[in-house]
Amino acid sequence: MTPSLHPDVAVLSPLLGTWHGDGDGEYPTIDPFAYVETITFGHAGKPFLSYQQRTVAADDGRPLHAESGYLRAPTLRTVELVLAHPTGVAEIAEGTIEVIGGRLVLELRSFAIGRTATAKEVEAVERTITVAGDELDYTLRMAAVQQPMTHHLAATLHRMPPA
Amino acid sequence: MTPSLHPDVAVLSPLLGTWHGDGDGEYPTIDPFAYVETITFGHAGKPFLSYQQRTVAADDGRPLHAESGYLRAPTLRTVELVLAHPTGVAEIAEGTIEVIGGRLVLELRSFAIGRTATAKEVEAVERTITVAGDELDYTLRMAAVQQPMTHHLAATLHRMPPA
Repeated sequence: MTPSLHPDVAVLSPLLGTWHGDGDGEYPTIDPFAYVETITFGHAGKPFLSYQQRTVAADDGRPLHAESGYLRAPTLRTVELVLAHPTGVAEIAEGTIEVIGGRLVLELRSFAIGRTATAKEVEAVERTITVAGDELDYTLRMAAVQQPMTHHLAATLHRMPPA
Repeated sequence: MTPSLHPDVAVLSPLLGTWHGDGDGEYPTIDPFAYVETITFGHAGKPFLSYQQRTVAADDGRPLHAESGYLRAPTLRTVELVLAHPTGVAEIAEGTIEVIGGRLVLELRSFAIGRTATAKEVEAVERTITVAGDELDYTLRMAAVQQPMTHHLAATLHRMPPA
């Protein structure tokens, strides 16, 4: 039985579901790469959405990245993201929610990054997520490994029909 | 097709699978409570295990807590945990791995906690996780809301047969 969506996260309801699509990555320190991504936003009736993401390489399907965490919406205009990365990085981000002509736009910026002793040197992350109907687009910028805030990822995903 | 387990996390292989069981929670600031928990440790062939947990109340099944993140084992004796909590808390923990007479024992202590503006005031978390065959036991201690490090949770779970 699926519980009712908590009213605090109703503003985020356009995110709910599983999304699948293609993305392109680049960064000054690496070769450009193409990936296939699956994202799931879920809820359990409490005042947060769960978020899970994984990517595989477009060329041979080998697993690339993954992330998991939670989204909160303390107000109708503000969003919080708490995220764990398997690279040993934990990310705390905050940002804004805008609903413009039926499009949901989230702008998030990390303000705290935690790292294990062996983690990749990520300093800050910025994300823009836009949902219009059954299409989700995002871009991600990152300051890491001595590079300033620089474009890293862009992807377009489509909502999968319910299983 | 399930990829082979990455050799860096082979020492953590006794954790793999889905676990289900009962736990008891207490803390100086709240009433004691009983919960039912499901934990899944998975892998994708990369040098980490994924970890997801959720609990529901033993009395009426209402959702209680959830956590998701990743475990790494930089050496055969050391473990790292990166964890997101839907309460707005991100946890970076490190600790030790011991294998004693077929039992796997992890001792973890947070050394960095990130919090969103609206997060619960968690200062530090300690976890002891023991796996013996198909039984997983853990205890969790927490310093939070002005309380010193204090026992909070204890649970015993059993490995579920593969689906």
